Amino acid sequence: MTRISTLGEEGLIRRIARKIRTGSTVIRGIGDDCAVLKGPPGKHLLFASDMLVEGVHFRKSADPAAVGWKALAVNVSDIAAMGGIPRHAVISLGLPRNIPIRFVDGLYRGLTRCARRFRVNLVGGDTDRADQIVVDVAILGEVEQGRQVLRSGARVGDSLLVTGQLGGSVRSGRHLKFTPRFEEARAIASRVKLHAMIDLSDGLGPDLTRLCRASGAAARIDAHEIPRRKGCSLSQALTEGEDFELLMAVGRPEADRLLAWSRRNLRCGLRRIGRIVRRGQGPVVQVVDPEGRPIPVSLTGFKHF
Amino acid sequence: MTRISTLGEEGLIRRIARKIRTGSTVIRGIGDDCAVLKGPPGKHLLFASDMLVEGVHFRKSADPAAVGWKALAVNVSDIAAMGGIPRHAVISLGLPRNIPIRFVDGLYRGLTRCARRFRVNLVGGDTDRADQIVVDVAILGEVEQGRQVLRSGARVGDSLLVTGQLGGSVRSGRHLKFTPRFEEARAIASRVKLHAMIDLSDGLGPDLTRLCRASGAAARIDAHEIPRRKGCSLSQALTEGEDFELLMAVGRPEADRLLAWSRRNLRCGLRRIGRIVRRGQGPVVQVVDPEGRPIPVSLTGFKHF
Repeated sequence: MTRISTLGEEGLIRRIARKIRTGSTVIRGIGDDCAVLKGPPGKHLLFASDMLVEGVHFRKSADPAAVGWKALAVNVSDIAAMGGIPRHAVISLGLPRNIPIRFVDGLYRGLTRCARRFRVNLVGGDTDRADQIVVDVAILGEVEQGRQVLRSGARVGDSLLVTGQLGGSVRSGRHLKFTPRFEEARAIASRVKLHAMIDLSDGLGPDLTRLCRASGAAARIDAHEIPRRKGCSLSQALTEGEDFELLMAVGRPEADRLLAWSRRNLRCGLRRIGRIVRRGQGPVVQVVDPEGRPIPVSLTGFKHF
Repeated sequence: MTRISTLGEEGLIRRIARKIRTGSTVIRGIGDDCAVLKGPPGKHLLFASDMLVEGVHFRKSADPAAVGWKALAVNVSDIAAMGGIPRHAVISLGLPRNIPIRFVDGLYRGLTRCARRFRVNLVGGDTDRADQIVVDVAILGEVEQGRQVLRSGARVGDSLLVTGQLGGSVRSGRHLKFTPRFEEARAIASRVKLHAMIDLSDGLGPDLTRLCRASGAAARIDAHEIPRRKGCSLSQALTEGEDFELLMAVGRPEADRLLAWSRRNLRCGLRRIGRIVRRGQGPVVQVVDPEGRPIPVSLTGFKHF
């Protein structure tokens, strides 16, 4: 009997996506940070959901306001990764029967704080009994038609740029307090034509692999250019995940312009960490040293199953 | 320390809704079957989510295809209750690590079957590890501007109509296989101006109480007019829930027309079960016998906490 632990999350999603057919109002369905749907004239709708589960994404002892913040922030990050603007969210809560009401109050304090910060309307949802705390947020956003940035558009020769610093997010507690790169994504996307973008939830290694696979390409990363958070090893920066930084592929001249602009205008920082190359027989993502020699390092992140 | 078990689901929702402010694109936020949002010209968007939890809404031994069907069908029912058309859905799954892949395949077989039946595009979602099976669906629909039917529009003198038959849904397994009243709701709403509508998920007693509270009114129900499913007592028809029939409030002359039309055109049946009355000192919902004498019967349904 096959269990999902042998299939993994990626395998599961591929298995599901194969069987699903969608209509002509769906511009992009399963397989990106958000679905892209036909919207009002000149606009597309963005639609996504992200679930947090106690014991997997946070501990019961965590600050409930931080859990609430994170539950919405990960969804705002998904909208940001498409180049869009978050608008409305619904929240499904699974709660153990004996949970103190101050936990729920705290959770909503965090949710509403994040909603105010990113001008998201909390418009509904569902509340049910469950053995574990489960917070599932579905978000609706929009993007100007033709301005959506998918995972699948990276081209050979593109520069790979990443915001912020990577690694140590879970250990430091940053994963519960991070600020989604919404303003940064909008500022960047208004300046240059991005070919592809993804937010780093599982780690640079696995998420860059996803972007490459979706684009039918490969990537070569300069180990010394990866912006590591203080105290983090190369391996930690590549695989710990929960960074919620943005990774983008953009033509080389545009990347030069963007990097020059970012020095004065992007507080979180922007780094060129490598480039998109042709997909060959070798690994999809290769990490190299300053002499261009491959570094043997695992790119596998957190396993959901 | 207050726990949510003392507050209950209704109390919890009121507590949450009080603290939330929304922008001008929100026509109706928390507190109805769906949120109503500004959409493309001439349309409003409908947005909702509904979560199923193993051990609460279904047993682990349940047919996974039936669980998948139900997970989407309850959301289609929410859209139907607003008079709208379902369009797109995202699915968040919480799954135990050791779950057989055939359970997930079955779940998606049911989801896609329901999606095809009601022309809903499955466009994304999230998959995470959890101790219990959790299936949360968020749905996006639309309704012609001004044609949305809220819970809050019932007027004194309105007839109360209900589709189908009530009671015994969980015992018979019908709750896993029910057909949401989408076509029926569209046919009815195109014929008359409905004042208010709600789908019966928790039972006629609790859901009619909700409709009355939202409308600032009360209701008087004729016990002998309630369409009970075979073998069900009055109390079971009032409180067992999971019927997913539609309850609507409509002016008396329109109700007469609708009832006449329904005899030839509505296979599920439509019954006038009572009327909306002024809110006084007495109970919000009163059930009476053929002589108009109040029947002492509990209207409290399934407690979520």
